[in-house]
Amino acid sequence: MNDHTERLQDIAHLGHVELLTPKPEESLWYFTELLGLEAVHAEGQSVYLRGYGDYATTSFKLTEAPAPGIGHVAWRTVSEAALERRAQAIAATDLGLGWSNGDFGHGRCYRFRDPDGHLMEVYYEEARYDAPEGKRSALKNQPMRYSGRGAGVRRLDHLAMLANEVGPNRAFVAQHLGLQVREQVIYQNGGFEVGAWMSTTAVHHELAYVIDAKGAHGRLHHISFWIDNREDVLRAADILSENGVFIETGPAKHNNSQAFYLYSYEPGGNRVEIYSGGYLVFAPDFQPVVWNEEERGTGVYWGGALPDSFLQYATPDVAASADETAGVTPEVPKIDPL
Amino acid sequence: MNDHTERLQDIAHLGHVELLTPKPEESLWYFTELLGLEAVHAEGQSVYLRGYGDYATTSFKLTEAPAPGIGHVAWRTVSEAALERRAQAIAATDLGLGWSNGDFGHGRCYRFRDPDGHLMEVYYEEARYDAPEGKRSALKNQPMRYSGRGAGVRRLDHLAMLANEVGPNRAFVAQHLGLQVREQVIYQNGGFEVGAWMSTTAVHHELAYVIDAKGAHGRLHHISFWIDNREDVLRAADILSENGVFIETGPAKHNNSQAFYLYSYEPGGNRVEIYSGGYLVFAPDFQPVVWNEEERGTGVYWGGALPDSFLQYATPDVAASADETAGVTPEVPKIDPL
Amino acid sequence: MNDHTERLQDIAHLGHVELLTPKPEESLWYFTELLGLEAVHAEGQSVYLRGYGDYATTSFKLTEAPAPGIGHVAWRTVSEAALERRAQAIAATDLGLGWSNGDFGHGRCYRFRDPDGHLMEVYYEEARYDAPEGKRSALKNQPMRYSGRGAGVRRLDHLAMLANEVGPNRAFVAQHLGLQVREQVIYQNGGFEVGAWMSTTAVHHELAYVIDAKGAHGRLHHISFWIDNREDVLRAADILSENGVFIETGPAKHNNSQAFYLYSYEPGGNRVEIYSGGYLVFAPDFQPVVWNEEERGTGVYWGGALPDSFLQYATPDVAASADETAGVTPEVPKIDPL
Amino acid sequence: MNDHTERLQDIAHLGHVELLTPKPEESLWYFTELLGLEAVHAEGQSVYLRGYGDYATTSFKLTEAPAPGIGHVAWRTVSEAALERRAQAIAATDLGLGWSNGDFGHGRCYRFRDPDGHLMEVYYEEARYDAPEGKRSALKNQPMRYSGRGAGVRRLDHLAMLANEVGPNRAFVAQHLGLQVREQVIYQNGGFEVGAWMSTTAVHHELAYVIDAKGAHGRLHHISFWIDNREDVLRAADILSENGVFIETGPAKHNNSQAFYLYSYEPGGNRVEIYSGGYLVFAPDFQPVVWNEEERGTGVYWGGALPDSFLQYATPDVAASADETAGVTPEVPKIDPL
Repeated sequence: MNDHTERLQDIAHLGHVELLTPKPEESLWYFTELLGLEAVHAEGQSVYLRGYGDYATTSFKLTEAPAPGIGHVAWRTVSEAALERRAQAIAATDLGLGWSNGDFGHGRCYRFRDPDGHLMEVYYEEARYDAPEGKRSALKNQPMRYSGRGAGVRRLDHLAMLANEVGPNRAFVAQHLGLQVREQVIYQNGGFEVGAWMSTTAVHHELAYVIDAKGAHGRLHHISFWIDNREDVLRAADILSENGVFIETGPAKHNNSQAFYLYSYEPGGNRVEIYSGGYLVFAPDFQPVVWNEEERGTGVYWGGALPDSFLQYATPDVAASADETAGVTPEVPKIDPL
Repeated sequence: MNDHTERLQDIAHLGHVELLTPKPEESLWYFTELLGLEAVHAEGQSVYLRGYGDYATTSFKLTEAPAPGIGHVAWRTVSEAALERRAQAIAATDLGLGWSNGDFGHGRCYRFRDPDGHLMEVYYEEARYDAPEGKRSALKNQPMRYSGRGAGVRRLDHLAMLANEVGPNRAFVAQHLGLQVREQVIYQNGGFEVGAWMSTTAVHHELAYVIDAKGAHGRLHHISFWIDNREDVLRAADILSENGVFIETGPAKHNNSQAFYLYSYEPGGNRVEIYSGGYLVFAPDFQPVVWNEEERGTGVYWGGALPDSFLQYATPDVAASADETAGVTPEVPKIDPL
Repeated sequence: MNDHTERLQDIAHLGHVELLTPKPEESLWYFTELLGLEAVHAEGQSVYLRGYGDYATTSFKLTEAPAPGIGHVAWRTVSEAALERRAQAIAATDLGLGWSNGDFGHGRCYRFRDPDGHLMEVYYEEARYDAPEGKRSALKNQPMRYSGRGAGVRRLDHLAMLANEVGPNRAFVAQHLGLQVREQVIYQNGGFEVGAWMSTTAVHHELAYVIDAKGAHGRLHHISFWIDNREDVLRAADILSENGVFIETGPAKHNNSQAFYLYSYEPGGNRVEIYSGGYLVFAPDFQPVVWNEEERGTGVYWGGALPDSFLQYATPDVAASADETAGVTPEVPKIDPL
Repeated sequence: MNDHTERLQDIAHLGHVELLTPKPEESLWYFTELLGLEAVHAEGQSVYLRGYGDYATTSFKLTEAPAPGIGHVAWRTVSEAALERRAQAIAATDLGLGWSNGDFGHGRCYRFRDPDGHLMEVYYEEARYDAPEGKRSALKNQPMRYSGRGAGVRRLDHLAMLANEVGPNRAFVAQHLGLQVREQVIYQNGGFEVGAWMSTTAVHHELAYVIDAKGAHGRLHHISFWIDNREDVLRAADILSENGVFIETGPAKHNNSQAFYLYSYEPGGNRVEIYSGGYLVFAPDFQPVVWNEEERGTGVYWGGALPDSFLQYATPDVAASADETAGVTPEVPKIDPL
């Protein structure tokens, strides 16, 4: 554990995320006009987008579907060799699905599911964004011109998924993708893992698993886009408000991650975070920060609490599960994922 | 080059920096009262400090000396084994100096010089900061209480050193420490390397080498501390101004690194940067951004130029070198290190 | 109404406020160390303070008392003649109390009560702050050095008082002090005035009256200090949190006034706001903005709601009034003063 | 001087400004797409614009003309009676021009010139902005929806005009418009008035007169638009940079006014400021702050200097005047208007 050289380093970073929406046009408006993402390609039922700071051609795929939710989560490996290693290791579990020919913006990928059922893939070959005339930045080191449109989010940052059980999913992505745990919320004297926040880079977390209060599987809590300054988050709140978008909570500061957040629902129903701040992790022997009930409190640093919807709503929305209905999980504590 | 798994990953990050000052009391006042660093220990002619966000007990050592300048630059390895590997590899060059028993806050280290003569060391064992009562943060994941004192810098970020020649030094730290090049300024159709910005983490740069306009060796251009928001940098400028500290340039935005900067001289004469923004690097196959004369311009993104002192002054200050006097280096272009 | 020349302009601005506290030492710590006010004088049971941007020697008096609450509210007139006019006009009502010899920082004043019983005074002669050596700003146009201590509030901005009935108090200060109504919250089809926000300057409001949910008299909802940037408000929230101060609500944005707010309780029990943003009023024929139940909503622009305490708690704290106990005022709607 | 009631209060505030441009389409693009102003009307060679926070229908008129410069400066009175008084008083000087029927957005006005020749007018009747469907804000107290387009300036703030002599112009607007002096730069032991900053409201200045270094008449130094936060100014600098607009100087902080500024040239050649911060003036007996050579320094608070163009360039641009050519004004010091 202390020897970083033994740490699996095949995954470079969270590569891209596919989001499902039953309202593709309205969702596209939200992401391009309000968040300020750039649409770079359309194909089939999907539009491919990017933040002005993403180096890849696309980091975000928006796909029409009957219900909102997560399409898939893609991880870029550090090399072709690393991709092979990951594919082989995952294929040896019962969660591997097989190779795919890739998609717009990236090459072949190996697809699999996490224990909770979320679809994932690993890939290496990535099309670096080459800004066309008119989209080039005055800054040579910036992949694309800052348009100033909408909130102007810079890049995909992370996502949080719900899981019927946190532990097995956390363990799976730690073992097979090399994600390191940054923070955990564990209640009941260590007996109940409410959530785990994990990353392969210095960024606080790229993926979080949080317990699904409704006992369902494969759901999304939120995806999150980075913006450079807290003032940008405040400005984003004005833009969302002027456009009639439901702000669920924020802008405010989490204690977990220290990040400054703003959660709204895009028209398709998915929860989207605009995110800034937090802290970077550099220590090779970083010890996860574990919060119990008392320490975690409401999860809101400056006081107040997250609304019930934040703890109950996810996509796709589901009715209470049979278990829940049967009273099997009444002891599930209030949870507050990032 | 494309295979990240082959990349040397023995160094985790820039660990700490020692700064020399002929005015230890005034310098200490500057760093603690104006920048907001915390002094955690004093020993001999040195005081050991930290930012509230540094996980190590100390990231910055301030030592009395006849002249200002850099004392040494320390890199933390990812493990003991990595430390051994680095020591052996460097010992095989003619730049190794040998093992030292360590210092307050960290264990044994292997010392060496870079080709330009700057003193460096690698170490692994580090004392994680354990905040005493009264210094603990309300945030469990924050190593220390945010005091709100002075500018309130969060952590050590990077340093920029001058070198008689950039290339050999860049190559040395790439080979032996695994630093990756992020940006370069190369003039004269590739014939003259003005500077190189390098890192081992997702942070834009931890170390820069910039040509020494005076042809000297072993000098420091600046050390830099991170602050979370650009507004904090503006506020810092007010604090420095109210305290009569010379602001050399900024707050403004570099094109190289995209960072928002503020440079002042601490009382001992060293240039210190308060720094925020910039961009993180995640691509395993990141291609260094190279700027030529025209692209680089003044180095200031929004217009204007860096003052002459920024290009000429470094610590220790030196008279024109013999070479310079002899007219050997009149072709040295104006340089603008970060 | 449309003819501004007919408008009473005898009052220049809100001059100073006296706050009562049962915990004078702790309160003083809060105002000087956390908010960053400067103590300039102590006399009897009082300490006199100022923000670095206040032009007067003191804008805020903190006085030991058995219970928290408002001591008095002082208005500066535009001239001695205006002071005489105001004194005569108020003396002609049954609310005048008579002349006083003044206090530290200002000359004679005429004291009176508003209909709800809050103590007020008008005065003209004011001691402009003359910063002693060591407190002078590097900016000639800034009355005092920006210390950077704590949140660093700039100046007294406004206060909000509760009243058993809003209308008579609003009318009194409009008639006798020339305060103009900026915004009102009126429920029940115009039948129930929940609050009125008023000013004599371009600043959005210097004084608000809000209905006292407990049917009491003479109480304070909050006093408010201005800070220049919203980022400063966010930073203040960190400082308050690190010092264990209860943050009641915010940072967030009101719809009424558009201001960015942060409410905490000082140790003596009084609610204090750190405030930035909002809008200035220049129109000579400005029409008050009136909000009904639906328009007002929760009073929080970006969503969420103010906590019950914000609507129920004021200083001095009182048990339910006899009227309330008797069920006379059950129809009092939820109120949300700024 | 001390008796505020004697102060002329016929003028409520700076009402609107007309700017001349030889490149109307490009200028319109700059003001709407980059600054974020809203075009509300077009007529003849003019387009009428507004900031989202301006209460009037229009605060800014952009008119095609052979050369850039100021068209006219309009002051709103507090009433019709005040308008009559102002018209009569000015008519009694030799600078009155007579009544005009008004223009889009306002009623009849009385036109005149200041001693330096700039065209001005006073008016009372103003069309309050009534936002059409789709432009209404979610905030009832905000005249128009915040679009988030471009820099998103809120409102017209002030303008600075050059004058062959400052004193007579300052005296004229003080006497006839009631503008109060806030700050002055006076060199040569009181012998040479470089500039005067004046206002009728709590806002630091609505109008500045600065000496014309070229000895010309009737020229404009800059017009200035307010934005709420310094972060917005920094963001504006990115937007201007990405759009190839020349940034002359800033973002930085003036010592005079304490304001945070960013100056660029709109395509027609006029200098435009994006402005935030500064301080409000409430004292009825405010004493102007006067800066001499040493105190004024470069005019830039945090160090550095304003570029020569800032001191030399104005619109319309002129060749050196005969006087200047003849060497009559070589003693004109470097000037640095806000």
